Amino acid sequence: MALSLQQKITDPRQGVYLIGTTPPKATTPADKTARIAQKLLSRLNEIEYDGLIVYDIQDESSRVTVERPFPFHSTLDPREYSCLLQQLSQQEIITYKSVAQRDADAFGQWLTQTAQTYKLQNLVLVGSPSSNGEIKLSLPLAYQQLAEHPAQFYLGGVAIAERHAKKGNEHLRLIDKSAQGCEFFISQAVYNAQATIDLLTSYARSCKQQGLRPKRIILTFTPCGGEQTLTFMQWLGISVPEGSQYRILDAENPLNESIKICRDNLQQILQHCAKLEIPLGLNVESLTNRREEIDASIRLFRLLKAMMELHLAEKEVA
Amino acid sequence: MALSLQQKITDPRQGVYLIGTTPPKATTPADKTARIAQKLLSRLNEIEYDGLIVYDIQDESSRVTVERPFPFHSTLDPREYSCLLQQLSQQEIITYKSVAQRDADAFGQWLTQTAQTYKLQNLVLVGSPSSNGEIKLSLPLAYQQLAEHPAQFYLGGVAIAERHAKKGNEHLRLIDKSAQGCEFFISQAVYNAQATIDLLTSYARSCKQQGLRPKRIILTFTPCGGEQTLTFMQWLGISVPEGSQYRILDAENPLNESIKICRDNLQQILQHCAKLEIPLGLNVESLTNRREEIDASIRLFRLLKAMMELHLAEKEVA
Repeated sequence: MALSLQQKITDPRQGVYLIGTTPPKATTPADKTARIAQKLLSRLNEIEYDGLIVYDIQDESSRVTVERPFPFHSTLDPREYSCLLQQLSQQEIITYKSVAQRDADAFGQWLTQTAQTYKLQNLVLVGSPSSNGEIKLSLPLAYQQLAEHPAQFYLGGVAIAERHAKKGNEHLRLIDKSAQGCEFFISQAVYNAQATIDLLTSYARSCKQQGLRPKRIILTFTPCGGEQTLTFMQWLGISVPEGSQYRILDAENPLNESIKICRDNLQQILQHCAKLEIPLGLNVESLTNRREEIDASIRLFRLLKAMMELHLAEKEVA
Repeated sequence: MALSLQQKITDPRQGVYLIGTTPPKATTPADKTARIAQKLLSRLNEIEYDGLIVYDIQDESSRVTVERPFPFHSTLDPREYSCLLQQLSQQEIITYKSVAQRDADAFGQWLTQTAQTYKLQNLVLVGSPSSNGEIKLSLPLAYQQLAEHPAQFYLGGVAIAERHAKKGNEHLRLIDKSAQGCEFFISQAVYNAQATIDLLTSYARSCKQQGLRPKRIILTFTPCGGEQTLTFMQWLGISVPEGSQYRILDAENPLNESIKICRDNLQQILQHCAKLEIPLGLNVESLTNRREEIDASIRLFRLLKAMMELHLAEKEVA
C-alpha cells in the first residue's frame, strides 16, 4: 500500500505533489462531465501525483474594478466533480470551499452532505475574496463549525505571499489558522519567488519563537502561454515581476519560457529555504483549458517534482 | 490507470524505475517467506517504482577460483517469490532465469508453468556464468524456444559493460539479442561509469548504422557498505575503479559515500549519453540483506530517480 495523502503531508521526509483543476461549467451535462474528467485523468497517466485539488471558483468581480479577462462562468458543485474524480481515479481529492456566501446553517448542512453524500474528507476553506462583498459566514466561524462537526475532516488553508508582501502578517495568519485546525496550506500561483521566500522565512521564524512545528506549505505553480493568461493571472492577484512578464511575452516559446521561470523560482526558493525545516509541496494547475497549457502543466509538474525530489534525496545523504 | 511497465519501457519519454531483489533461502518456510516479502514491500512504500526484479542466483563457483565472500545458498524458485510479490504488491515483476543447467525439454515445461501456474510474463534469460561449466541449453536456443512458445512473454536480456571493456563486442551482442526477441536490457551494477558510457555509445552508434531503434537499457546501481560487500561486488565481476574503492573504504560513512559515487557516475553517464537517444532506466538493488544496506538502497533509488526524471523533464522544455 502506498502512503496516503495525509501520511505524506505529515511526514517531512516526503514530498507532496498535487494537480489543481476546476470543475466544468454549471451547464455541462453529466456524460460530458464524465468525459472531461476521464480526459484529464488520461493525460495525467504519464505522471505520478499524490492527489487532485478541485477549486471553488467564485465571481470575484467585487474584488477589483478591472474587467475579468476570461468571462466568469459558474461551475458545477466542486464536490460533485471531486466525487467523480475520486471514483474514476482512486486518487485522493482536496476540495476548496468558499464560505462567505451562505450562513452558518447552510454551511452545517454543506459539511454533513460533503461527508455523507460526497464522501470527501480533505477540505480547504476560503474566506471572502474582498472585504467589500457581503460576508454571511466568516472564515473563523466556519473553522469552528468544521471542528465541532461530527465528521472527521482533514483541513487546509490558503497562503498568499502577495498579501504578506503588502501587509507583512500572512505568517501570523498561518499560525492562527493552524490553531483553528489547518494541517497544511496551499499557496496562490508563485511567480514572485522573493515574496514566497519572505513569507516562508517569517513563518519558520515565528514558529520557532513560539515552539511550533511548521505545517506543510504546498506551492502552486502554473504555466503561462502569453498575454491573455498573464493578464488573467494579474487579475487573480498573482504578482508577476516585470522581468518575468517580458521574459514570457518576448519569448519564441512563451509556454516553455514560463516553465523555465517557474523552475528558476523553485530553485531559488529551495536554496533560500533549505534550512527552514518547513515541509514543502507542489501543486501544478493550468489556468485555462487550452490543450497546450494543459500539456505544459504536465511538463511543468514533472520538472518541478524532479527538482524537489532531488532536493529531498540530496538532504538524506548529506 | 497508470502506464504499464511495458508501456513505460516502450515510451522513450518515460523513465523506468525498478527495484532488484533475491528470493529467500530455499529452506525458508512459506509463512516466513510471506513475512520477508511484506517487509520488503512495506519499506518500498515510501518510494514510487514501476516494478520489481527477482534474480535467479546460481552457484557461480565454476566462474572464478576466488572464494565467494558470502557463502552460496540456493534460493526458493524465483518464480514462486515473483508470484508472491506480484500478488502482495500489485506491481509488475521481471523474473530472471538462468537457462544453462537444464535441457530444452525441461525449459519448455518451465515456460509453460511460468505462464500458467505463476502467471508471470516478464523474463530475463541469462546464459551460463562461464564457458567452463556444462551447458545443457544455450542462450540462443532458449530464446528461440521462448519465441515459439504459445504464451506471450515480454523478454529482456543482460548487458555487461565489463564484458565490453574486455572484448569490445557487447554492443553487437545486444543487437543480436534484440533480433532474438529482447525488448530491453538490464545492466550489471554500475561502478565504472566509463565502461557503461563506452558500451552505450558503441551500441547507439551501431544501431544508427544499421537503422535500428535502440532498446531501453536499465542501469543497475547498488550501495556498498564496506570491505566485505566491495569484495563480493568484485567477485561478481563488477568493476570498481581504484579511486572509488578508496573513496568508500576511507569514508566516515561508506554507505552514503557509495551513494554519492553512484550519483556522480549517473551524472557522468547522463551527460555523456544525452544525445544518444537510448532510453535509459534504473534498477536499484541491495546486495546484502543488512538493514542499513537496504535503507541505503532506498535513499539511492530516490536520488537517482530524481536525477533521471530531472534530466528527462529538462529535455522536454529545452
